[in-house]
Amino acid sequence: MTTLSQVAQRAGVTSATVSNVLRQRGKVGADTRARVLAAVEALGYRPHLTARALAEGRAPTLALMVSSIANPFYPEFALAAEQAARQHGRFLIVCNTNDDPDIGRAYLDQIAGTLSDGVLVMNANICIEDLQATARRGATVVLGMWEKPHQPPALPCVAVDFHLAGALAARYLIALGHRKIGVMVGGGVCGVHAERERGFNDALLELGHGDAVVHRMMVHDSVEGGLQGGAAMLAAAPSITAVFATNDLPALGLMHAAADLGIKVPQQLSVIGLTDIQGAHQARPALTTVAVPTAQAAAMSVALLLELIAEPQSVAPMRIAPAPELVVRASTARRSD
Amino acid sequence: MTTLSQVAQRAGVTSATVSNVLRQRGKVGADTRARVLAAVEALGYRPHLTARALAEGRAPTLALMVSSIANPFYPEFALAAEQAARQHGRFLIVCNTNDDPDIGRAYLDQIAGTLSDGVLVMNANICIEDLQATARRGATVVLGMWEKPHQPPALPCVAVDFHLAGALAARYLIALGHRKIGVMVGGGVCGVHAERERGFNDALLELGHGDAVVHRMMVHDSVEGGLQGGAAMLAAAPSITAVFATNDLPALGLMHAAADLGIKVPQQLSVIGLTDIQGAHQARPALTTVAVPTAQAAAMSVALLLELIAEPQSVAPMRIAPAPELVVRASTARRSD
Repeated sequence: MTTLSQVAQRAGVTSATVSNVLRQRGKVGADTRARVLAAVEALGYRPHLTARALAEGRAPTLALMVSSIANPFYPEFALAAEQAARQHGRFLIVCNTNDDPDIGRAYLDQIAGTLSDGVLVMNANICIEDLQATARRGATVVLGMWEKPHQPPALPCVAVDFHLAGALAARYLIALGHRKIGVMVGGGVCGVHAERERGFNDALLELGHGDAVVHRMMVHDSVEGGLQGGAAMLAAAPSITAVFATNDLPALGLMHAAADLGIKVPQQLSVIGLTDIQGAHQARPALTTVAVPTAQAAAMSVALLLELIAEPQSVAPMRIAPAPELVVRASTARRSD
Repeated sequence: MTTLSQVAQRAGVTSATVSNVLRQRGKVGADTRARVLAAVEALGYRPHLTARALAEGRAPTLALMVSSIANPFYPEFALAAEQAARQHGRFLIVCNTNDDPDIGRAYLDQIAGTLSDGVLVMNANICIEDLQATARRGATVVLGMWEKPHQPPALPCVAVDFHLAGALAARYLIALGHRKIGVMVGGGVCGVHAERERGFNDALLELGHGDAVVHRMMVHDSVEGGLQGGAAMLAAAPSITAVFATNDLPALGLMHAAADLGIKVPQQLSVIGLTDIQGAHQARPALTTVAVPTAQAAAMSVALLLELIAEPQSVAPMRIAPAPELVVRASTARRSD
């Protein structure tokens, strides 16, 4: 591999001059600059990013820890985070924990502070204690989408008001006249969807319809989870006219369960999800949902991470992402009697 | 950050002994080993992967270049590649080129051979010349899913027989009695789906039905592409009874277009895709498709990459992944007259 000094030798300058040209630092005359660039080109020299990062005391990557890259929400978040990272000259390592706290811990132990100096964590089913231990060892950790802006965590985060997201779904179903509602709560060990359900229930109470939820179940946070749970719910509670799923994936699965049973959406059953993944507007009927600001939260998370790497703070900052918004599509309708 | 020598000092041993304990090399007594591990724990020391990798002359990551992480096929491939990489103690950097050859080139220039010593390329819309230039500069490049096993490329690859995949789709539609068929060819600049269409057409010729394709169009390789193209195709060629899409995404979009027009799948229109992404079996009706061995190809690609990093070869090897297979679901049926 070509070295900096070989480039310097060919261009007839010092290594420091080559370095200045490549980093656009210091004063270098136009002729010298051209000679250096010609030598770089001729020898195929590329600055050694890893070495340079080590020399400068910073690592060249950011890590994004996600619970399952196969869940389509995470690639959408990763795409936005990767673009934001690249704009800042960083590469994004995507670490997939498979919802396994041990794999999460292994990633944190092995890459945080070495290969990556910043870690962005997305619902990766990692105990906050492990994350705090990582932060104490000198790596910067940011939680990418904290669900409870009213309860800041002990780590820096970008918060999205999921309580409001749940409330928007409840208000819309009540406004459509639905009074017998099913709720599908997605989630795993870490119970991340609790805040969404709380927002939904709090809004029902405020509207004087605290008794509207006639069936409530936990489902795996996936299309399959919604399909299986949906079949069970529609069999157990045939009186329901609307279902709120705390995530789009189970909402889509529920629509498939309804199709399998010959139940028409939205004529016989309204379905509303939460998140607004690509699959929501692509579905038939297109899914009504409460959209969370995925791309903005990703960009804000990367920006916060880089700020904290540059200037660590003693207090864990929390940034609030734009508010969730109701997106009305074809899977919801007024209750028909 | 704690250094190796601080650990050694605390444990009362040499740095070499600490290193031996951590790498499980050399002979170290049980007591000494316990003392070293206690010191590692107490000081929160972690071996500096990047530094070690540089010292050992290898970089600690593999890079996966994909054209769009938002296309659900790539996260499925990335998931399998990431798991294979992790089993070999490597991390996988996912680089998203957004189908832009310039971004692809920038990634190759900046990470190949420095941050990553191996690059796995998935249809990333990068010219083979750029990849060869990268390989000449000392980085190992493997093409993750080469579509033409009969025409080996100039670079190492894992090949999948997409000609056969197209042929399987044709044979199945002909067996179902379809004689007026639409073909949707997905793809962009690099024309990666040409081999799939060729396999489809070659099989039709072999079966004596070379005239069965009555409508053929190019579409963007996405659900939206299939939706827009499908609406146009169904309006322009109402006589078709079956459509082969060269990828599942446009096949799913076509099913949505049919639903929007009130055309029943499969009673009035059979639809077959190619790939078998998660969305295929999740769709309603579930999509008949030709499955390609995504997870196996990913694991084989990582294995080949690591073999070539360890022992470079003068001849570019090609490994053949398991053959594609027809997966019959609910979106296809016998032609009804």
